[in-house]
Amino acid sequence: MRRLSAAGLALAAGVMALGPASAPELEAKPVTVADLLAGSPAADWRAPNPDDTLYLELAHGRVVIELATRVAPQHAGNIKALARAHYFDGLAIIRVQDNYVVQWEDETHRRPLPPSVRPSVEFTADASAAARFEALPDRDLYARQVGFLDGFPAGRDPHTHSVWLAHCYGMVGAGRDDPAESTGAEMYAVIGNAPRQLDRNVALVGRVLKGMELLSTLPRGSGEMGFYVAAEPPVPIKSMRVASDVPAPERTPIEVLRTDSATFRSVLDQRRERHESWFKYNPGAIDLCNVPLPVRTPGGS
Amino acid sequence: MRRLSAAGLALAAGVMALGPASAPELEAKPVTVADLLAGSPAADWRAPNPDDTLYLELAHGRVVIELATRVAPQHAGNIKALARAHYFDGLAIIRVQDNYVVQWEDETHRRPLPPSVRPSVEFTADASAAARFEALPDRDLYARQVGFLDGFPAGRDPHTHSVWLAHCYGMVGAGRDDPAESTGAEMYAVIGNAPRQLDRNVALVGRVLKGMELLSTLPRGSGEMGFYVAAEPPVPIKSMRVASDVPAPERTPIEVLRTDSATFRSVLDQRRERHESWFKYNPGAIDLCNVPLPVRTPGGS
Repeated sequence: MRRLSAAGLALAAGVMALGPASAPELEAKPVTVADLLAGSPAADWRAPNPDDTLYLELAHGRVVIELATRVAPQHAGNIKALARAHYFDGLAIIRVQDNYVVQWEDETHRRPLPPSVRPSVEFTADASAAARFEALPDRDLYARQVGFLDGFPAGRDPHTHSVWLAHCYGMVGAGRDDPAESTGAEMYAVIGNAPRQLDRNVALVGRVLKGMELLSTLPRGSGEMGFYVAAEPPVPIKSMRVASDVPAPERTPIEVLRTDSATFRSVLDQRRERHESWFKYNPGAIDLCNVPLPVRTPGGS
Repeated sequence: MRRLSAAGLALAAGVMALGPASAPELEAKPVTVADLLAGSPAADWRAPNPDDTLYLELAHGRVVIELATRVAPQHAGNIKALARAHYFDGLAIIRVQDNYVVQWEDETHRRPLPPSVRPSVEFTADASAAARFEALPDRDLYARQVGFLDGFPAGRDPHTHSVWLAHCYGMVGAGRDDPAESTGAEMYAVIGNAPRQLDRNVALVGRVLKGMELLSTLPRGSGEMGFYVAAEPPVPIKSMRVASDVPAPERTPIEVLRTDSATFRSVLDQRRERHESWFKYNPGAIDLCNVPLPVRTPGGS
């Protein structure tokens, strides 16, 4: 009986990453996200382009990041150039603030940037990107419309025809000063409740597909705003690589549920209206950042 | 310059717990939460009642939890009775699911419950509690109204006159099976994006005031739904105590900003409308679970 309690809570979870789905129950109507994923056709999944995928290698494992090349093409190009110049290798995590962000960059400012790296402002994208936006019917506090763009959570303004990525858990952004330009040499990942007030204020450059727990469990920094202080043991970055530069056998096999698939629509329906008997009150709504974005590692860890 | 970048991000953070505020800048208009807190009168802070405060003692430190006695009086009473019967002492964290919850309970079901512990359903409270609700002007996806009740984030339905606590980061709830009753012997804390779909489906019993990072950094369980498996090192619970049962010198000095204070209203205004030059786009809104609920430890760690 107690396990049911856990199951009840689990059904409500924001599934960030899923391993191979468990065997589907033989039921007339699938009622869990796991059921839906287990019954999904292969065509509902996509393999991210390895040329737009980063491997952030930490001592305790690999964080897989998919780059958002449509909204932040300059940043994506910069970050790949930086990775290929080994810019990030041997740097360290410099900040972990609870319920907020993990941040990494060269605090010494000594490392040269490759010549192709140019600062830019990529907070929003224009109508051509907005045309590919998949709108949700759900309301939002921070955007007139919310939905998905190339699989990333996003907002859109139908009046200005602009579109932008949303600061949900696991999203990766480019830290910046004031003025607004950034290069991608300073990076952060969201590890807490969605800080949506940052939307349209920072360039989001991608999202963590796998290995999120390697970032979210890092010791919080004891300095102001979660910065690590000298007395704290460093969390070194072994390397950051573009997946396509890594020999194929060493790559992480990964598939992402397509947000334009029938399976994803079923997942959304299942999560918006909760018909499981455990739910005594049906929320009838879903927040953009509570939508599960399933990832699986076929045949992998 | 790079530090400004960090500062910009920090200004936007959901401040969960603050140490002693840094010295205020001499400015005509305070622009940061730290400024507002540093300039706040003592009367804007309250010391939680030690008889409604729990100390969850882990090997790596103390988690301080304030009980929500108005919305969940039976659960609060149960949990205090359980703590006083040493029910939780020597149990362990059984589940840590990334972006969701940490959970602890007696998985063996062997420990007897004290006779005063009775199961109950405390998902919502009635009009007398609702009358103490402090409404925010902000919209919400999951509730008709949102605001605060005794300092806890809450929702209210003006038609039914019911009020309930909201599943924000750091909130603590009572796990349950199906049917809906729970005792508080199974507990969880939210460590991810607010799972608001659980609102009115589980009894929330309090929130973590201090030590949240002791829970949020725990290794994620490798079992389904984040359950720890046998091969994983246990995370024992040394004890759970009611603060008033702990000798005064061993208590954690703690103060919480009153949500009915002028300082809190200023914090809300500052966070809803972002006038700092770093912000290029003013969100003009705030999500209930992004409202900072400042806590300080006067003279303490």
